[in-house]
Amino acid sequence: MGIRIFVTGGTFDKEYDELRGRLFFKDTHLPEMLKLARSRLDVSIRTLMMIDSLEMSDEDRELIVHQCEACDETRIVITHGTDTMADTAAALANGVAGKTIVLTGAMVPYAFGSSDGLFNLGSALSFVQALPHGVYIAMNGHCFAWDNVVKNKALGMFESLW
Amino acid sequence: MGIRIFVTGGTFDKEYDELRGRLFFKDTHLPEMLKLARSRLDVSIRTLMMIDSLEMSDEDRELIVHQCEACDETRIVITHGTDTMADTAAALANGVAGKTIVLTGAMVPYAFGSSDGLFNLGSALSFVQALPHGVYIAMNGHCFAWDNVVKNKALGMFESLW
Amino acid sequence: MGIRIFVTGGTFDKEYDELRGRLFFKDTHLPEMLKLARSRLDVSIRTLMMIDSLEMSDEDRELIVHQCEACDETRIVITHGTDTMADTAAALANGVAGKTIVLTGAMVPYAFGSSDGLFNLGSALSFVQALPHGVYIAMNGHCFAWDNVVKNKALGMFESLW
Amino acid sequence: MGIRIFVTGGTFDKEYDELRGRLFFKDTHLPEMLKLARSRLDVSIRTLMMIDSLEMSDEDRELIVHQCEACDETRIVITHGTDTMADTAAALANGVAGKTIVLTGAMVPYAFGSSDGLFNLGSALSFVQALPHGVYIAMNGHCFAWDNVVKNKALGMFESLW
Repeated sequence: MGIRIFVTGGTFDKEYDELRGRLFFKDTHLPEMLKLARSRLDVSIRTLMMIDSLEMSDEDRELIVHQCEACDETRIVITHGTDTMADTAAALANGVAGKTIVLTGAMVPYAFGSSDGLFNLGSALSFVQALPHGVYIAMNGHCFAWDNVVKNKALGMFESLW
Repeated sequence: MGIRIFVTGGTFDKEYDELRGRLFFKDTHLPEMLKLARSRLDVSIRTLMMIDSLEMSDEDRELIVHQCEACDETRIVITHGTDTMADTAAALANGVAGKTIVLTGAMVPYAFGSSDGLFNLGSALSFVQALPHGVYIAMNGHCFAWDNVVKNKALGMFESLW
Repeated sequence: MGIRIFVTGGTFDKEYDELRGRLFFKDTHLPEMLKLARSRLDVSIRTLMMIDSLEMSDEDRELIVHQCEACDETRIVITHGTDTMADTAAALANGVAGKTIVLTGAMVPYAFGSSDGLFNLGSALSFVQALPHGVYIAMNGHCFAWDNVVKNKALGMFESLW
Repeated sequence: MGIRIFVTGGTFDKEYDELRGRLFFKDTHLPEMLKLARSRLDVSIRTLMMIDSLEMSDEDRELIVHQCEACDETRIVITHGTDTMADTAAALANGVAGKTIVLTGAMVPYAFGSSDGLFNLGSALSFVQALPHGVYIAMNGHCFAWDNVVKNKALGMFESLW
């Protein structure tokens, strides 16, 4: 059984709109990133939404929980904006059992030469293979349990609570 | 206790010599890569050698084994050329006990915009935190036990033996 | 006598603010770009402002005209946002005589791997050396006289009027 | 009438062979570079050869001279290895009349994130539009007459003779 990747948007997939001079979402870069990474993992990618995580509603989170429950795979990676990543992790911990779910994201868009996006993707896809069932956040090289993580918005870093 | 990273060279760290038009080794890119990746891991980096793995001698491997035994850390990542990575992994499995050691590398130099180097580094640093004692190779998103891996030189990919 | 480069901002020099997830101005990338380009030209770079050209006021344009008049150099390149580049060119044509002035810009920020910024910089610095006195816009490989150019905002391209 | 671009190889178009770990030639990157540069110039690209300029023979140079004579365009850019660029320029000056020919190249391959390749391409395409008939070398931001240029191999820079 392979790994399921759910795409929800976030900085990871933002692009530069050269006609309007602003950031926007188009398609996910996940397939391109996995190709450049020479990944040989058996993954299925599905885009659930393409939004800033600050705009993610309760209904959006219910959809993510439902998709994680409903899919056949027991190992799931979710790309997600960093601002409310911990909220979605909590919703998943309360709603999904018997699966290993790792959320990850980026501080810099992949289209802007993001180094953290590729590093985090490699990290999330590795932790999801190695860790027992549970919900985790893989950022900054660390893997945090869903109930022991907070984003330090001043530093743009994730930290454990205790 | 943090993670020890030993640098041995390989494609990972090759650079382009613009005066001579050829590839060469200068310094490792590991600190720069970890900075761009926004890694917050506690790592100590030490360069043991800067060579093509095809030129690695038995003495070189003995040095690597000795350094892995002697260091305080029990979690070690080694960047290494891909051609003889499996040989060094076997030497480590025979020579070092009670530690988790993950070897990784790249098919494209980091200085040439390598995507696999960053992805593999994120992968190796994650597997080394999550896996039990043993010697592994992290390439192409997979983590192989040292005695169940071979490089398919025609494809430039690592595969399990059985 | 060398070439004077005046920096006024524009897409050229925009950066990504990873804490706030938006674009902003910090310092100009011109020195770094010229270094990577292996330029051996004798240039003096001065930042006059760092703004979106849509926010450029009449006073800002008067400052640019004054600086072009006052400097010793007779060959001047100005980096500028594309939206009102033609307006500034017209102000310069009316206010400065006896100099070759070339305005250029970019559709994608240099920090985002912009290829057009480097290409346009090479183009502007070449036209400014080769052309007689006058005010020009160097974009998309072409060099337009200041009174025969318009930005096609739907295409993000500059075109001649006749 | 548009601009003719003749491709002869050189560092400009070198790629990294990830299976063999060495540099090689495949196809030219010129169309991709012009697209990313948002060039709107009317150009026709033709690959004459894909070689290191140190390996260029007298017959190769005769072919280049013949192609420059025979083509309809009077404005020609040639991408060329830097080591013998001045020799080919001299052959062209002796063999072709009534045309503006600009040779250019790069110190770093475009595929390795070369900044000088894009800058030099923008420069060469600009000088070829602006200069009178003659043979020139556009490198490092400068444009040298064919009989007043030498490559300083220790610095990797082009210099005028007097």
